[in-house]
Amino acid sequence: MTFPALHNDTFLRACLGQETEHTPVWLMRQAGRYLPEYRALREKAGSFMAMATNVELATEVTIQPLERFPLDAAILFSDILTVPDAMGLGLSFAAGEGPRFARPVQDEAAIAALAVPDMDKLRYVFDAVTSIRRALNGRVPLIGFAGSPWTLACYMVEGHGSKGGAWEKVRALAWSRPELMERLLTVNADAVAQYLNAQIDAGAQAVMLFDSWGGALADGAFQRFSLPWTARTLAQLKRTGADGQTVPRIVFTRGGGLWLRDMAERLQCDVLGVDWRVNLGTARATLQGSGRTLQGNMDPVALLAPPEAIRAEARRVLDSFGRPQAGSAHIFNLGHGVLQPTPPEHIAALVDEVHSHSRALRRQA
Amino acid sequence: MTFPALHNDTFLRACLGQETEHTPVWLMRQAGRYLPEYRALREKAGSFMAMATNVELATEVTIQPLERFPLDAAILFSDILTVPDAMGLGLSFAAGEGPRFARPVQDEAAIAALAVPDMDKLRYVFDAVTSIRRALNGRVPLIGFAGSPWTLACYMVEGHGSKGGAWEKVRALAWSRPELMERLLTVNADAVAQYLNAQIDAGAQAVMLFDSWGGALADGAFQRFSLPWTARTLAQLKRTGADGQTVPRIVFTRGGGLWLRDMAERLQCDVLGVDWRVNLGTARATLQGSGRTLQGNMDPVALLAPPEAIRAEARRVLDSFGRPQAGSAHIFNLGHGVLQPTPPEHIAALVDEVHSHSRALRRQA
Repeated sequence: MTFPALHNDTFLRACLGQETEHTPVWLMRQAGRYLPEYRALREKAGSFMAMATNVELATEVTIQPLERFPLDAAILFSDILTVPDAMGLGLSFAAGEGPRFARPVQDEAAIAALAVPDMDKLRYVFDAVTSIRRALNGRVPLIGFAGSPWTLACYMVEGHGSKGGAWEKVRALAWSRPELMERLLTVNADAVAQYLNAQIDAGAQAVMLFDSWGGALADGAFQRFSLPWTARTLAQLKRTGADGQTVPRIVFTRGGGLWLRDMAERLQCDVLGVDWRVNLGTARATLQGSGRTLQGNMDPVALLAPPEAIRAEARRVLDSFGRPQAGSAHIFNLGHGVLQPTPPEHIAALVDEVHSHSRALRRQA
Repeated sequence: MTFPALHNDTFLRACLGQETEHTPVWLMRQAGRYLPEYRALREKAGSFMAMATNVELATEVTIQPLERFPLDAAILFSDILTVPDAMGLGLSFAAGEGPRFARPVQDEAAIAALAVPDMDKLRYVFDAVTSIRRALNGRVPLIGFAGSPWTLACYMVEGHGSKGGAWEKVRALAWSRPELMERLLTVNADAVAQYLNAQIDAGAQAVMLFDSWGGALADGAFQRFSLPWTARTLAQLKRTGADGQTVPRIVFTRGGGLWLRDMAERLQCDVLGVDWRVNLGTARATLQGSGRTLQGNMDPVALLAPPEAIRAEARRVLDSFGRPQAGSAHIFNLGHGVLQPTPPEHIAALVDEVHSHSRALRRQA
């Protein structure tokens, strides 16, 4: 497969710890409901999954934020739950309610019956990756993604999201029947590895694992039920893409700030993403010598404040990391996804400030 | 005011960093819906607030878990939202829905109108404290408590709990109008100080501040909107109780594990409580030399596992702290409140294991 040459490789270079002229910026959920053009397309499509499974619509939605803002990367428009859906759990999104599985995995028999799904069922995702990569036309790199084995298990066992993020059912299963949980996580880890490898083959230039609910686990339990399974996925990933280029691997663990050292020690990845609770200066010191790039971490709620406050906070986040160096790079992002009430012009102010202030930071002695 | 002599002061001594024969244990929400006798009383009373405002019922409910388990402390049965209720916000608890304020505080005028309430409106709480202290008859010490200024602000601005714990409204106000937020927090800090001092006068032998939602804040925002206001409350607290004894001060910040050093530096308190995500060995090292006692932090979900798994996890938590020493003590607790589906006999196994294993730990060389 051949693709157009990449014009802006700032993001990829920062992933690999190389020096860049400015700090690259992209935003989790940059293609989303805060954009009127997204809402229009969503209404036309009828549902989230109708958009995600339609190659043309997924392509258009992925590109939308890039038409407005000079972001340094695009991320595939999809959902982390496509993988358990392909396992036969029956995914749906009820209006205003979040995801739901018709057949959650709650007993020994259901877990025994689980298997890595035929990747052909996820063809619509890989086709979207190729289509988006072509449509980007080398403008910026395309990030593929998947949920972490643990985070997928949360939804698979609970059957839906968790009120308050406590995830009591899946965490109770982990405490009561750890060996069952590990069987489930093995299937997830291998399925996610195949899924990301197929995205890489289809044209993804970087891949990201979202451990959105790793931070719900107790210390000790995180090291048993999240970390080794993310590691198992990472160990199976292809290192180069369809075009022969290195494919950086990003792991984002929401609420995982306390375990950054564990992650650096045990995960074969290039970038660690942190949420808004982490001090970037402290995190950078923790990762010192590991060669890992840090990604994050402005509070998405700060984007509801006036533009001048947003610019000040963007500078504070950049300054808390400090001047990037070879082997210690920074990718600017939010600490979590863009919120629906965010005015698009606030994103414009943010991206502009990150680019200009990070250039200024590099000019300082 | 005079009270019966205290028979078991293990908890108070551990609070003050003194050596004890075993690690004291009590549990957040130890008086709660997991107990059938609690549910019976709650049904009779008709509502949560009917129980909390009735001195006899509040006394009975507080004592209930002590009749079953040899816990080392009792905690006042009440709610953190009594203070904003006394400010006139109109607290109610809809069945299965959590707390709700009829008059949330969402604009400049509402914040300007706030004032420290007349403590006479909270007389029912202070009367309950005195009644419980008498009913305990010196068995174990009684802990009084309040919500932290920030955590009260979360509910006051939002008007109710936050789905998923994001607290977008109050956090957006903090980013957009920090000076308004600080006015609200000033009133809260002073109100909470008066409230805890009145509990101390009424017989509370230790006091605890629950910063349940401090962990929702971004790094930087926590240091601006939570920490200084908790500090302001603590600075106003009486140091001795009605009986002339020192009254230890505990601060529990859910999700605050990353800020333990900030808390030790800025809070005049004796004990820091940590949630289940914190490694107690790491936390102890962070607090080294600060003289602070650590409280926590078993995952409450672990109490849904079989008793043998609970005992193993209790040992793991005790071992992760290690052998307590003068100036570095441990109080065993959960990392959050007891969950409703917890079988009471599981609590019995936990308390027994904490007592026996912590004695064994002290006998080791």
